[in-house]
Amino acid sequence: MPSSADFLQYIDQHSQKFIDRLAEAVAIPSVSADAAYRADVIKMSGWLDNQLKGLGVETRLADLGTHVMDGQELPLPPVILGKIGNDPKKKTVLVYGHYDVQPTLRTFQAEKSDGWDTDPFVLTIDEKSGRMYGRGATDDKGPVLGWLNVLEAHQALGLELPVNIRFCFEGMEETDSDPLDRLIQSEVAKGSDNWFAGVDCVCISDNYWLNTRTPCLTYGLRGIIGFKVTISGPTRDLHSGGFGRMVHEPMTDLIYLMGKLVTPDGRILIPGVEEMVAPPDAEERELYEKLDYTIQDVEEAVGAPITISNDKATVLMGRMRMPSLSLHGIEGAFSGPGGKTVIPSTVSGKFSLRLVPPQTPETIEKLVVPYLEQEFAKLNSKNKIKIESMGGGKPWAADYKHWNYEAAIRATKAIYNRSPDLTREGGSIPVTLSFSESLGVNVLLLPMGRGDDGAHSTNEKLDRSNFIEGTKLLGTYLYEIAAIAT
Amino acid sequence: MPSSADFLQYIDQHSQKFIDRLAEAVAIPSVSADAAYRADVIKMSGWLDNQLKGLGVETRLADLGTHVMDGQELPLPPVILGKIGNDPKKKTVLVYGHYDVQPTLRTFQAEKSDGWDTDPFVLTIDEKSGRMYGRGATDDKGPVLGWLNVLEAHQALGLELPVNIRFCFEGMEETDSDPLDRLIQSEVAKGSDNWFAGVDCVCISDNYWLNTRTPCLTYGLRGIIGFKVTISGPTRDLHSGGFGRMVHEPMTDLIYLMGKLVTPDGRILIPGVEEMVAPPDAEERELYEKLDYTIQDVEEAVGAPITISNDKATVLMGRMRMPSLSLHGIEGAFSGPGGKTVIPSTVSGKFSLRLVPPQTPETIEKLVVPYLEQEFAKLNSKNKIKIESMGGGKPWAADYKHWNYEAAIRATKAIYNRSPDLTREGGSIPVTLSFSESLGVNVLLLPMGRGDDGAHSTNEKLDRSNFIEGTKLLGTYLYEIAAIAT
Repeated sequence: MPSSADFLQYIDQHSQKFIDRLAEAVAIPSVSADAAYRADVIKMSGWLDNQLKGLGVETRLADLGTHVMDGQELPLPPVILGKIGNDPKKKTVLVYGHYDVQPTLRTFQAEKSDGWDTDPFVLTIDEKSGRMYGRGATDDKGPVLGWLNVLEAHQALGLELPVNIRFCFEGMEETDSDPLDRLIQSEVAKGSDNWFAGVDCVCISDNYWLNTRTPCLTYGLRGIIGFKVTISGPTRDLHSGGFGRMVHEPMTDLIYLMGKLVTPDGRILIPGVEEMVAPPDAEERELYEKLDYTIQDVEEAVGAPITISNDKATVLMGRMRMPSLSLHGIEGAFSGPGGKTVIPSTVSGKFSLRLVPPQTPETIEKLVVPYLEQEFAKLNSKNKIKIESMGGGKPWAADYKHWNYEAAIRATKAIYNRSPDLTREGGSIPVTLSFSESLGVNVLLLPMGRGDDGAHSTNEKLDRSNFIEGTKLLGTYLYEIAAIAT
Repeated sequence: MPSSADFLQYIDQHSQKFIDRLAEAVAIPSVSADAAYRADVIKMSGWLDNQLKGLGVETRLADLGTHVMDGQELPLPPVILGKIGNDPKKKTVLVYGHYDVQPTLRTFQAEKSDGWDTDPFVLTIDEKSGRMYGRGATDDKGPVLGWLNVLEAHQALGLELPVNIRFCFEGMEETDSDPLDRLIQSEVAKGSDNWFAGVDCVCISDNYWLNTRTPCLTYGLRGIIGFKVTISGPTRDLHSGGFGRMVHEPMTDLIYLMGKLVTPDGRILIPGVEEMVAPPDAEERELYEKLDYTIQDVEEAVGAPITISNDKATVLMGRMRMPSLSLHGIEGAFSGPGGKTVIPSTVSGKFSLRLVPPQTPETIEKLVVPYLEQEFAKLNSKNKIKIESMGGGKPWAADYKHWNYEAAIRATKAIYNRSPDLTREGGSIPVTLSFSESLGVNVLLLPMGRGDDGAHSTNEKLDRSNFIEGTKLLGTYLYEIAAIAT
């Protein structure tokens, strides 16, 4: 049951209308991280709610209460829960997206060099390249509107949807998804008649292709745990002339400890951390070798030839299936330009580990803390150490042989005439884990945009073809689910 | 030829007048590091010039031109050159001091906890303890005014000064003594009739006793050289989720290098640096053991029991006769509170070494740079390294068996009834080296204030007894020079 030719044709024929609607959405500056824009985030929820209702979706705005930001108590934007279709013979797909956007400097008028080349809240299309610039174009208004496009085509053509759909669109993803987590958990706790009951699988469009060429499906995300190691010595900063070589200097101890965590080629030195991850077998290794992503792609992305290896699979596995440890910086030391002959009194090193299954923040913390304590003891320093975990999240990996993935693979072949790359990402999307664990169903990450969209940067864009073909992909994915899974 | 009883009595009898004059000087906020106070620094030069003239000193205000600070071109405060006495049968003593002061928060009114307990520019006397609080009280207006007191007593009593005195009072010491250095060098270059010609020794009162109990003479200062090691990798900061374990991270390399510089107990790991300094013989070691300064004094000064050793001589030698290396911080890394999962693209580690004879900035740089390059090469990192010296100054050590020191020792015994401790300091006073090298005469550091005066801190103070007895000490020192050296 592939999607109908009518559906695909409708999308092509109405692409300008879809782009106009995206422009309307981009024009609402729904920046969740800035209190000054909170009214716009809430306006955006109303706009989206109206769109969904107009397309036949039964909606409920879940009130999440208030929170404090920048010293103000602010209303949290609601989670829009939507429902369309209730046929027990059909699969039920939960679609997640978010209608808030990253902050942006609105400096395009004052000083273009400081920020965007165009107004971030005016969708600006470069006709030659087909790039549509605007804050939220790819993250995540484009994908959310892709679903609206699918609904509209079916409504206009009088076509029945091949699956039941549940929508969950939040307005705080860029800032704090905790309120959504609590909503999911409190719903699920209601038992068999909770709002998410009956969901068979989840589809999240909130990430990107690895590159600019090849569609991909994402079946894994790394977890994370952050640490703060504080060494304190004197009660105030000292002058290095007056006290250098008289006292144990906290910086000396801290730098020693931070130097015992990871090698330049990325191997984690904390005993037990590497050992938790089984080495790849030949089959898995081959999977990485086949990915349409080269050493050169990495070099272009970072702007320098600094990959930890010249072997592509090693580099890709470093991001996708291995844990990593990054040293972020030191709080309390001299960090300005120029020189300052200070012995800082209290310094805190910040680092974090990205985790892969079966690692969890808890198991890693139990390895990191005693290791640092032992290494510190070796120093015979009279300074004090304090090790704090700064919280984290578990890694996630889905079964990509599940029908949910199979449907997405078939849909990708149908729309893009090629198999998608199957990838894992190095970062985290916490809601993925929430759905996976709370609902106990397969979760698919089905990206719409490209690797160069610049989701959190200036000049965020979505290619027109990704928006239009991506809309076709989402619709076709629903048909493929119906074809496989019924 | 001890100082006359009349002189000593005059000082005691006129102590209130001297304190009133110190209050006048403190009331002029001559902060040289803040452009907003430059007029006050220049006002202070006029005040001091008038005082000197009134006491019979022939003065010359040496114009140093202008400099740029905070984006403004500002007139440099003049160096006050003063001359009194020209008897070829007498020794000629060059007295150095400075009339500028450290910056200070003037927050005592708004929020006492943030700054001073009293107005820093109102000399405030705690009658019970005898402490006189005020910015510049001990650094360096008290000592400078000590010399005025000596002159005034002689003028009032109709006493002849036992030596010829030359004064050199500058107004940029807390900010940049380079203009004075240039003045000294250009004067000396004039040959036999330069302003400094005929000077037999130098006396600088711009440091402090080691403790609060025992007068000391200082015959050595450490030199310094600062370094900036920059590691650069990607062209922009990266997200640790997206790129962790794909690329060589500059922080990992930098932390490794910074960890190869010094041990927690202060031993410098750069080959050749420690080896330049001969170990102390038994006699020298005994000198440190006898100093009136305990491990407990150090612990009280730094607020924690963190000395690198429990052996007093080791700790004191660490500051006075050994080189030290301190890690100050990192520029370009994350230095804020909280967490940030960033891979910083370019990071610069800052560290400096305090030097002792025969080390010089040049000889140390030649050891540090190749060592860091070799250690970096071992990492096989594809990142780039750049090592910069941030300038420095040579160490200084005087012959403390010279008559200049002998006179100061005798004067101290006469006024304080005890021998002074002979010490070296861990920091630098660049002008000491300028006088020593340019004039080729013995330089003595003869402190007036105590180790707890807080010269560069809030609540800077000078004890009344140190001001009054210190004035007697300065005068008696001149008489002892005349007695020994003629």
